[in-house]
Amino acid sequence: MVEQKGIIGIVGGMGPSAGIDLSSKIISQTVAGSDQKHLPQLLFSFPSSISDRTRFILGQETVNPALAIARVLQKLEMCGATVAGMACNSAHAPVIFNEVVRQIENHNLTIRLLHMIKEVGLFIRDRYPHVKSVGVLGTTGTFVSGLYEQLEEFGLDVRNVSEREQASLHSSIYSQTYGIKSFPDNIPARAIDLLCDACRSLKEKGADLLVFGCTEFPLAYRQPMFEGIPVIDSNMVLARALIREVAPDKLRPWK
Amino acid sequence: MVEQKGIIGIVGGMGPSAGIDLSSKIISQTVAGSDQKHLPQLLFSFPSSISDRTRFILGQETVNPALAIARVLQKLEMCGATVAGMACNSAHAPVIFNEVVRQIENHNLTIRLLHMIKEVGLFIRDRYPHVKSVGVLGTTGTFVSGLYEQLEEFGLDVRNVSEREQASLHSSIYSQTYGIKSFPDNIPARAIDLLCDACRSLKEKGADLLVFGCTEFPLAYRQPMFEGIPVIDSNMVLARALIREVAPDKLRPWK
Repeated sequence: MVEQKGIIGIVGGMGPSAGIDLSSKIISQTVAGSDQKHLPQLLFSFPSSISDRTRFILGQETVNPALAIARVLQKLEMCGATVAGMACNSAHAPVIFNEVVRQIENHNLTIRLLHMIKEVGLFIRDRYPHVKSVGVLGTTGTFVSGLYEQLEEFGLDVRNVSEREQASLHSSIYSQTYGIKSFPDNIPARAIDLLCDACRSLKEKGADLLVFGCTEFPLAYRQPMFEGIPVIDSNMVLARALIREVAPDKLRPWK
Repeated sequence: MVEQKGIIGIVGGMGPSAGIDLSSKIISQTVAGSDQKHLPQLLFSFPSSISDRTRFILGQETVNPALAIARVLQKLEMCGATVAGMACNSAHAPVIFNEVVRQIENHNLTIRLLHMIKEVGLFIRDRYPHVKSVGVLGTTGTFVSGLYEQLEEFGLDVRNVSEREQASLHSSIYSQTYGIKSFPDNIPARAIDLLCDACRSLKEKGADLLVFGCTEFPLAYRQPMFEGIPVIDSNMVLARALIREVAPDKLRPWK
């Protein structure tokens, strides 16, 4: 088996659990017969340094999180990382991602930064070529920023829930009384119900594939299908893309 | 609330999942009202560079993994880490740990490296002052190295399973057909049964507390008690000790 070329870097801390989730999916998607055969990775998590992505997208925060993200990429490169991923959907809104790319160029970094949403597009085109309409589930930040409209470049038609449904879906993540972020180890039934309501609504709107565009949802719904249509987890797709970049022959076959 | 002082570094890759487990326990043991309030941490995982700890302890491998571990600590310090933990029980065998300490001194590193087993001793003395006998469950490497005999410094009497039982317990981790490492997402009943058999045997030998001295076991048995006696997870104790070092006021109260 060919050894890997390069080291995977993860920009974590957005939130901290999403970085760990990405790191752990890199392991679960790698074919390795022993501990030693797993891929080298660096996970940098500086939660307090990176301003809130959603608040920046919504104009409630003036500092672009891209600046702190670029500093993390610089440190990752210094430690040998050759390719990197950001474990955060919202950080891929053009207003943030494009600024990160500008910073990478300004600092002459050579690290390759993957784009989670574009990787989702490539993945769907590759694995589910017959899919036309994609239903996207995410935070209100993801919804408002039109982040996943970038999938249209891949010939995909993007469906969202209504504004009222979006408010409920957002609460399934952030509610202090029943949200996934507050109870990650024992997710309240109400959060799961709200997530399933949104999945059902997107299916009724014609989606023939669902994208979980928020790292909390896979904690609440672990099945690969929802009422007959596939469910794709954006962090899982990014994990696979990072493996592909350093050791394609170690990528676990997709079921 | 006082902000944290310093950055947590994790020497991961031994195996890779243990590093992620430690990182994730740092998050679950931290009191933080938002993503931004979580503690900064760096997880460095270079699985192929660090020789197998058990094989070195058993004399089947000549290169001391301490050398590669020290290089990781050097990189962690370069990136700002002020305190570090190794997510691997076996790396705390004196033959490895003492060499790591020597390397830290030789390289004039200032990073503080915690000692997982000593932290377990402190934790038991602090939280379970009436405990006298501790039953330890681990790999055969842990068993042969007498790693947990270091708990005797804390006035604790250490109980192990018999050699025959140890072989079964080891297989519950490493077996290719039913071991936890091969099926982390859907652990076979046989692995769970073997682990519970070992717990029961230690209880019968007079243990009034059990230590899971291997990061795989908590995946197979998630309860805080086993038939009326407490179960302590060494990675969880290390996570709490790392938080204590940088932000003691953010440490989640112990139930």
